[in-house]
Amino acid sequence: MERLSGEKEQSVEAFGWAARDSSGHLSPFVFSRRKTGEEEVRVKVLYCGICHSDLHCLKNEWHSSIYPLVPGHEIIGEVSEIGSKVSKFNLGDKVGVGCIVDSCRTCESCREDQENYCTKAIATYNGVHHDGTINYGGYSDHIVVDERYAVKIPHTLPLVSAAPLLCAGISMYSPMKYFGLTGPDKHVGIVGLGGLGHIGVRFAKAFGTKVTVVSSTTGKSKDALDTLGADGFLVSTDEDQMKAAMGTMDGIIDTVSASHSISPLIGLLKSNGKLVLLGATEKPFDISAFSLILGRKSIAGSGIGGMQETQEMIDFAAEHGIKAEIEIISMDYVNTAMDRLAKGDVRYRFVIDISNTLAATRS
Amino acid sequence: MERLSGEKEQSVEAFGWAARDSSGHLSPFVFSRRKTGEEEVRVKVLYCGICHSDLHCLKNEWHSSIYPLVPGHEIIGEVSEIGSKVSKFNLGDKVGVGCIVDSCRTCESCREDQENYCTKAIATYNGVHHDGTINYGGYSDHIVVDERYAVKIPHTLPLVSAAPLLCAGISMYSPMKYFGLTGPDKHVGIVGLGGLGHIGVRFAKAFGTKVTVVSSTTGKSKDALDTLGADGFLVSTDEDQMKAAMGTMDGIIDTVSASHSISPLIGLLKSNGKLVLLGATEKPFDISAFSLILGRKSIAGSGIGGMQETQEMIDFAAEHGIKAEIEIISMDYVNTAMDRLAKGDVRYRFVIDISNTLAATRS
Repeated sequence: MERLSGEKEQSVEAFGWAARDSSGHLSPFVFSRRKTGEEEVRVKVLYCGICHSDLHCLKNEWHSSIYPLVPGHEIIGEVSEIGSKVSKFNLGDKVGVGCIVDSCRTCESCREDQENYCTKAIATYNGVHHDGTINYGGYSDHIVVDERYAVKIPHTLPLVSAAPLLCAGISMYSPMKYFGLTGPDKHVGIVGLGGLGHIGVRFAKAFGTKVTVVSSTTGKSKDALDTLGADGFLVSTDEDQMKAAMGTMDGIIDTVSASHSISPLIGLLKSNGKLVLLGATEKPFDISAFSLILGRKSIAGSGIGGMQETQEMIDFAAEHGIKAEIEIISMDYVNTAMDRLAKGDVRYRFVIDISNTLAATRS
Repeated sequence: MERLSGEKEQSVEAFGWAARDSSGHLSPFVFSRRKTGEEEVRVKVLYCGICHSDLHCLKNEWHSSIYPLVPGHEIIGEVSEIGSKVSKFNLGDKVGVGCIVDSCRTCESCREDQENYCTKAIATYNGVHHDGTINYGGYSDHIVVDERYAVKIPHTLPLVSAAPLLCAGISMYSPMKYFGLTGPDKHVGIVGLGGLGHIGVRFAKAFGTKVTVVSSTTGKSKDALDTLGADGFLVSTDEDQMKAAMGTMDGIIDTVSASHSISPLIGLLKSNGKLVLLGATEKPFDISAFSLILGRKSIAGSGIGGMQETQEMIDFAAEHGIKAEIEIISMDYVNTAMDRLAKGDVRYRFVIDISNTLAATRS
């Protein structure tokens, strides 16, 4: 155990698990959270999903990690304290906190409720708060957040399986809406059946969209078709299958963050089709301009969603009974979970049962 | 002079200039055009613009040239014969013929008036007609075309400077409309001030859009700002200028077909901004997914426009007095013009005065 020096007056002791270096190994960590501000809520963390970004950050694969690093941005919790000017929440409300906890609030993106694209957006962990302190994420007993950056979780949504919606869910929902890939006359491809992809299939079905999962192997075809209800399953390494599917999709959401060729995916698009990349692959990819010009195709990126849209997504999920497929783990299993995640050995999201298992790890 | 064998019964003798091989050298060529079909018009060619594609095709740089090759897809002419079922045109009408002269007419693209994205669209030259014959372009005395693929030229539009609108004009107009880059609250960048770019500036100003020309050198800044009325001029090799312009553009139309880096252009875009590529560069582009995800940016391609949209563009040009800056040349100057075009030595489009200078080249 270690304790941060220079804690602020009136700050509150917090406990979580942190990595100390790029080994990424997580272990118990005592730190502090600021006092609850006027427009802020303090949230007792109940569950936190494990996102693949957590793994990238733990191991400093994006070369921007600040240690000690407490990951976690798929947070479900309960409001335990509210600031004097909070209007959206009451004590005991169930809330969600996702990938960002603040932004500039004045730029065009913020004014248009797209705080996620604010260039000054502050990440839930590994970000720097306005007061200069480093943010710690949801692998911890509580978190303090401005009410604008928390969403309400309706009573009808099971809490534990809602956690992955805060990052994986909104990452899929937002581009399907923005790029017009909803409705029965649309056909969307989802590349990669993992934490994001599997929720994407469920959103697509709730939108009434025809959805085909594109995967490099046949391993997940039964899950895709039977468990998740996809309309089709396409093996990207099968040239005949790919050829037969040319020009059939209005859009493709590519969730894969490992390096891969996207040219074959462009071939799957109809005219005016859009390939949306969610995965920040390390290497740049090659694109032929011709392949975009023939059919006015686009390649776009998309990252999570704005706060209003995140609330809309949560409400939509509650209305349509959408939940993530999860494996609930205890806090002390987290390093094993990370090893398994690195190998793709999870169907489809780990969620840490923080409220029932974190405290026991404090010696 | 040479004469094609196997001419069809009732075909009509035609005369133009053709390249015989990938030297690209053009010389007089006698060939034949089919008789005018029921829904077709025969068009006496008056003017034909020289597009950079002509040069690529003449030299077989896209590896698909069929020789003898008569280029030309920026055709302005006069209807000299009409088929029995033609409803759109009368004898003597001034018409334009652009890059395509047919398509399948049944696919989704054709049904949605986007014949340009029909995968069976037939090019005005170097394309294969339904009857198996090779199409010859507008560097010739006349052409036969289905009325659907010709547009009306209003009396108010000067004929000679309208020729480049048929390819260069629609190539700029269509993406500005489709990608929502019109209106006073928009800022569009146009990369490359050539045949396409200079017309793009004029369309942008007619749309009321703020337009900045992006060029690799300062050489054309006076033209851009004074002659064409651009609002800004940005030198892409000047790092300070580029840095100051980061995040300021809603869209960029990139007309450059020589290989170049597009990453700096993505930096110029605002969130949700679109980089539209018109040039079919030989080498693929390198793109980082991150650069698109941060700000939900897109890279798209666009190629000419549908026939209805081409008519709309011509009518818009007539209404707003938009014309290309041209250098009128005689037919026998065409090889010199091609040499100059290859060096970028034209402001900004060569147009061949077919009706006054072609016949004299027939010995």
